[in-house]
Amino acid sequence: MATIQHPYLMFLGDVPDQLAAKTAQGIVHWRRDWCAGQLRLDGAKADLKLPDMTVDEAAEAGVKTVIVGVANRGGRISESWIPVLVRALEKGMDLASGLHRRLSDVPALREAAAAHGRQLFDVRHPARDFEVATGVKRPGKRLLAVGTDCSVGKMYTTLACEREMRRRGMKADFRATGQTGIFIAGDGVSIDAVVADFISGAVEWLSPANDPDHWDLVEGQGSLFHPSFAGVSLGLLHGAQPDVLVMCHEPTRRHMRGLPDRALPDLADCMEANIAAARLTNPDVRCVGFSINTASLDDRAAGEYLASVEDRFGMPAVDPFRNGAGPIVDAIV
Amino acid sequence: MATIQHPYLMFLGDVPDQLAAKTAQGIVHWRRDWCAGQLRLDGAKADLKLPDMTVDEAAEAGVKTVIVGVANRGGRISESWIPVLVRALEKGMDLASGLHRRLSDVPALREAAAAHGRQLFDVRHPARDFEVATGVKRPGKRLLAVGTDCSVGKMYTTLACEREMRRRGMKADFRATGQTGIFIAGDGVSIDAVVADFISGAVEWLSPANDPDHWDLVEGQGSLFHPSFAGVSLGLLHGAQPDVLVMCHEPTRRHMRGLPDRALPDLADCMEANIAAARLTNPDVRCVGFSINTASLDDRAAGEYLASVEDRFGMPAVDPFRNGAGPIVDAIV
Repeated sequence: MATIQHPYLMFLGDVPDQLAAKTAQGIVHWRRDWCAGQLRLDGAKADLKLPDMTVDEAAEAGVKTVIVGVANRGGRISESWIPVLVRALEKGMDLASGLHRRLSDVPALREAAAAHGRQLFDVRHPARDFEVATGVKRPGKRLLAVGTDCSVGKMYTTLACEREMRRRGMKADFRATGQTGIFIAGDGVSIDAVVADFISGAVEWLSPANDPDHWDLVEGQGSLFHPSFAGVSLGLLHGAQPDVLVMCHEPTRRHMRGLPDRALPDLADCMEANIAAARLTNPDVRCVGFSINTASLDDRAAGEYLASVEDRFGMPAVDPFRNGAGPIVDAIV
Repeated sequence: MATIQHPYLMFLGDVPDQLAAKTAQGIVHWRRDWCAGQLRLDGAKADLKLPDMTVDEAAEAGVKTVIVGVANRGGRISESWIPVLVRALEKGMDLASGLHRRLSDVPALREAAAAHGRQLFDVRHPARDFEVATGVKRPGKRLLAVGTDCSVGKMYTTLACEREMRRRGMKADFRATGQTGIFIAGDGVSIDAVVADFISGAVEWLSPANDPDHWDLVEGQGSLFHPSFAGVSLGLLHGAQPDVLVMCHEPTRRHMRGLPDRALPDLADCMEANIAAARLTNPDVRCVGFSINTASLDDRAAGEYLASVEDRFGMPAVDPFRNGAGPIVDAIV
């Protein structure tokens, strides 16, 4: 995939509620400078607190790409969106979408893109072939965020580490493996959409050889303990060859995401299983700390929980949303 | 995928040597009754010891499907094959291929299949969508062959178990996860070609709920210790929810397949890692024995090696090619 060019116009369509704009909100949170404005059709029920713009105003403002950053049932591209998206192509902008249905499967968009020499990015669908992984260790340092479950803050954690490392003047790049992350990075691989044989190979491609003091901060996916997706998590782990792991967890979650009858693993079991598996491609891997999503806890309960994890494991435990990733980066350097 | 109908005509094209006909040989070995004949073009260098037949003779003999069971560089469909394959479609036969390139991507074949109402099976490419795995335990018993490496005899082992169980009057079905296995079973899923998110879900589909005393004998793929493919192996393991594992190994192999610098895992480490991972979806899983490919050893060395494994682990160790799978099935029942 070529890099998605910014500035972005965040297209929200007729989004039914704020939750359906979660991807768009994540992009604004991490890349506010890239987001020139938002475009909402009649009836849109979300607000990113960006200037509202028409397509023509966005073109005037130098926008390069319109981001379709909304979720809807079935991942469809609504008929009502198409005239606006066609207009964006006519005005010289690219389109990028995280929906399941491809922009390139909509004839009007495909034709307008071809006519105006614009690109359509369907970030959920890998746009290139990958090689089978070699497992051969490559230069550069790598951090991988792993987790007890899906959606426990792995992307947030790696982005917080990138921000903290860059603040300290370290060489660091976030490597995106999911759709929101790809919009935030401008490129990446939607790893769960890769053909099974090439999971690890795609990660080797995503995080290539680099300077010995350069850190790739690789976004994890799923969990070795999630029976639906553990194969993806293991392939990602082997391809990333992480030097350090950060274990991500949401302490109030009652069951594995999507599976009401399945409990989360114990933190220690999860850490040990990830380290054991990661040793296959990097025998020197170590866990440096815990990243806890305490959004459902009040300040005091959050502080107590973090302290209890630090006591138990003798490693830093942070909520990067509350406090940043400083102690994690301290433990690495 | 619909079931591939037999009898088969084994199409060898202009196969350059016997090794390139390995898939076809496997089919003949396990399903001799399904194989009516072979068709070799000028210059073919392999022989399956089946009656040579033209397409017209095959149609006369009641053949239902022509199997393109050869490997070649790039997995191409040679121009010189096309007139013969078109003729087969005209005579009312289906085509099934294990090549990387799809039969359905060859216009002449696609058009002839449509014109004559015939099917094209590209067994390397899943022809349906799968659901995400639930991890919920389903009725029926399941055996999975796992291994220290790729190509150590996992398919052979599961087929030998199927044969032995059926000989004893047990309910047993081989479940194919690779191309040769799919030809032998008549259906299945080429699991390494499934989109990563659906590896386990595809296996749940392949091996559905069954009678409590029915055994599915699930063909394993890869190895948890192969850095290129372990994600596939883990997803397969979780989806299969095996009650019993058989550990497959080739004792003379010097390195992991395709990776000259990587040693094979120790048998005990490999067994323990597979059991630990399998417990996620079946806490009662156990390893019942070892299946050793001793093709590179003489009779005496083979016997000594098998005895040494039995001594070390207190479980049966067999070479199913030499002795069948009797002791493995004894250990299960």
